[in-house]
Amino acid sequence: MHDQVTVNEASPLYRQVAAHWIRIMQQGTLPAGARLPSVRQLCEQHGISLTTSVAVFRWLEQQGWVEARPKSGYFVAQRAQRLPEPQLQAPLDAPQMVGINERVMDFLDGTREPGVLSLGAACPGPELFPVSTLQRLLKQVAHEQPLALSRYSLNACGEASLRTQIARRAASYGLHLNADEIIITFGCMEALNLALRVLTRPGDTVAIESPTYYGVLQIIEALGLRALEIPTHPRDGISLEALELATRVPGAVTACLFITNFNNPLGSLLSPDNKKRLVQLLGERHIPLIEDDIYGDLYLEGGRPPVAKAWDKNGNVLLCGSFTKSLAPGLRVGWIAPGRYLKAVEMLKFQNTVATVSLPQLVIARYMENGGYERHLRRLREQFRQQIARVSASVARHFPPGTCITRPAGGFVLWVELPAGLHGRTLFNTGRRHGLIIAPGDIFSTQGLYDNCVRINCGLPWTDTIEAGLRQLGELACALQTTMTEQV
Amino acid sequence: MHDQVTVNEASPLYRQVAAHWIRIMQQGTLPAGARLPSVRQLCEQHGISLTTSVAVFRWLEQQGWVEARPKSGYFVAQRAQRLPEPQLQAPLDAPQMVGINERVMDFLDGTREPGVLSLGAACPGPELFPVSTLQRLLKQVAHEQPLALSRYSLNACGEASLRTQIARRAASYGLHLNADEIIITFGCMEALNLALRVLTRPGDTVAIESPTYYGVLQIIEALGLRALEIPTHPRDGISLEALELATRVPGAVTACLFITNFNNPLGSLLSPDNKKRLVQLLGERHIPLIEDDIYGDLYLEGGRPPVAKAWDKNGNVLLCGSFTKSLAPGLRVGWIAPGRYLKAVEMLKFQNTVATVSLPQLVIARYMENGGYERHLRRLREQFRQQIARVSASVARHFPPGTCITRPAGGFVLWVELPAGLHGRTLFNTGRRHGLIIAPGDIFSTQGLYDNCVRINCGLPWTDTIEAGLRQLGELACALQTTMTEQV
Repeated sequence: MHDQVTVNEASPLYRQVAAHWIRIMQQGTLPAGARLPSVRQLCEQHGISLTTSVAVFRWLEQQGWVEARPKSGYFVAQRAQRLPEPQLQAPLDAPQMVGINERVMDFLDGTREPGVLSLGAACPGPELFPVSTLQRLLKQVAHEQPLALSRYSLNACGEASLRTQIARRAASYGLHLNADEIIITFGCMEALNLALRVLTRPGDTVAIESPTYYGVLQIIEALGLRALEIPTHPRDGISLEALELATRVPGAVTACLFITNFNNPLGSLLSPDNKKRLVQLLGERHIPLIEDDIYGDLYLEGGRPPVAKAWDKNGNVLLCGSFTKSLAPGLRVGWIAPGRYLKAVEMLKFQNTVATVSLPQLVIARYMENGGYERHLRRLREQFRQQIARVSASVARHFPPGTCITRPAGGFVLWVELPAGLHGRTLFNTGRRHGLIIAPGDIFSTQGLYDNCVRINCGLPWTDTIEAGLRQLGELACALQTTMTEQV
Repeated sequence: MHDQVTVNEASPLYRQVAAHWIRIMQQGTLPAGARLPSVRQLCEQHGISLTTSVAVFRWLEQQGWVEARPKSGYFVAQRAQRLPEPQLQAPLDAPQMVGINERVMDFLDGTREPGVLSLGAACPGPELFPVSTLQRLLKQVAHEQPLALSRYSLNACGEASLRTQIARRAASYGLHLNADEIIITFGCMEALNLALRVLTRPGDTVAIESPTYYGVLQIIEALGLRALEIPTHPRDGISLEALELATRVPGAVTACLFITNFNNPLGSLLSPDNKKRLVQLLGERHIPLIEDDIYGDLYLEGGRPPVAKAWDKNGNVLLCGSFTKSLAPGLRVGWIAPGRYLKAVEMLKFQNTVATVSLPQLVIARYMENGGYERHLRRLREQFRQQIARVSASVARHFPPGTCITRPAGGFVLWVELPAGLHGRTLFNTGRRHGLIIAPGDIFSTQGLYDNCVRINCGLPWTDTIEAGLRQLGELACALQTTMTEQV
């Protein structure tokens, strides 16, 4: 949910009317808790139909701007917008060996406990995916291509049909790739592993966003690398100034790994200008860039953002993508376009897992050939937009004063900064004892930064259970804060 | 094909009669080229039916003992048994950094060329697998468990149903495993990768069989490890004496990686006594053993051999297995039972590929639950037995004098030692120019040993094309030998 409401005359009427009311609420003319006109009054005031009027309120409610109270009408919500955004906070420090595994495994153990409400891992709800279509395609493909079951594939690069589809889609957002520049992997994690293993030797330094996805830190730890955390703005992404400084000494940084579109956990977006500058800077300094674009298709506003690789002329960018967050989490199909490291990545892929399973690749290729992917993505983004709005509003309602919250430009997670003195790890542990799992902020940094934060997954369709869980979490946070104050 | 013919009174009549004639041929009473009695004469001589008599000759022919000549009857073949076996030859040398990637990739490029007869990679023919059953189970499972498509699995260990089946099967060959001691992987290659990455740091030394599977050497190279080649007998497996010597200095060897059952490329088999001694030796010296049992189910005689892990009391053995050679090459499902390294392997699996795709696991589990696996394996082993016999006989017929050939106890590859002066790499290159791909011996050793050898895949059902290909290869080898002699 963003402060700016972008509607124009081409928007549906209900959105135009809603925008009018959002402006009024933003200006504070209608403060939190104030009553809005009734559905019928809105009809008269704007000269719209009853259906449109109802759609206006439904939209405002979905977006977290208003709340319905039974038999009383609609009221301005204690809205997420009221919560300030967190600010850029990481200092630029020395590279460090990573020791995060135990903390992450403890978190993951929590997400796997039976019966918990898991707002921890960044997983979309299974009901958001076109399962029956995928089932049908799986049957088709298994029937048509029995060799996909019975043949030992030595093709480390993957199925040509899927690579063609990926290349076509890349063209639609301004990236010119050939199918044979792409290698299919077991999800994005294998792609990131291969990229880092090809580029680095133990002891080397990898520059990453701060905060960043804990899985990236785990790979870095497993490979015996050092992580250099680059300060990253919750909206605008990595600080190019900090990166420029950090890479000034030749050899100080061996490779960069950035999630340029909708960094997990921040949802930040590097602007096209900054992507161009990033590629130029790293090109000049001969530092390869691993660009993790797993969330690129999940933009919440505007159009599909470009990737930094679009400005890459020398094959210096290794672009990684995946269908695990956007189409078929269970199939674990990812890919890498490794630029001038193509041969090296192909060799390592063969050594790591020989080849990616064929069937899931063929299913996804068929799905994309049939043209269903764009339609599905439109629905999925709308879902995430609504779910983020609901969670944001709920956090704003229930978390203690002083809480800050991101306005993600894409993806489906929220980064929540707790009031001074409240620890994310404490809130995680307390929540866990009540069957409520969120991600503690300290797993997103190897330096132990962000213990004042938590990440909340907004991938699940909104239910009363989630609202109740967030309310309980908020109450637990308030109680912790009270205890803390009393102790002081 | 083996020298000893094991039949008893429970064997079918045609096998008993065939055994009688095999003994006569083995004794040289009927030399190569000699004519056998006619089908009708055999009936009279043994008092058997025409059908049985025909079955006798068909069996002898399938096994490579006799050849049919149109309108002339059956003749004793230029048989494989006549070729001597290669002998133990690797010296025990210092550990070496591995630099084999380029040679292997050149070989693999060859196997992928369109239109070639590929007797190179160790791949069974796709027609040997129960494809229609697997297709049916896939449809069933995809229908019953839609979450397998749409859920993001954080379970790095894999599906419980498959782990249970693997544990049950292990019990049938004397290994007591719990389902929760097993982690499912993307084929055996990922299992070997995880095991080596957990146990070693770059620069460490890994003891391996010599010769061994080139994929193992590639993993060792990619991880920056040293390989120590342990002399390995074509029938009896690694020399425990050499291993004892090599591991005498503490720290000299960090881990061992052995294919104890039917080493690829030799088909050798470590006896139960030697497995026990191996586990004892390595246990005393605190050296973990990675046991690759990918071929264990593919024994050609007797029963299922035990694994060394059966003697492991302290979790010092990391057992790796797979269904890619035995049931469903396209599904890439393998597993590891990492003993006391369970937690470390689980963490690394998560970091490497998060989790193994669910559907293929569920399909294989269902197949095993239905009890079809043992029946399928019986058929498969019989196929491999026949195919090895046909290829052995063909090599004996066509390759130059001085050629030696293994008697694999399991698996489906043959290791062929060429006469002195003939290079496997030269024969590979020459064959490749004629569209005939075999594996050059030099990719099975990092020290450049075995350039006098080639490996031939016997996984494909026998056809005239294979016979013609092997004849042409033999002719090419003879021609190379002639050229060589002339040059001398």
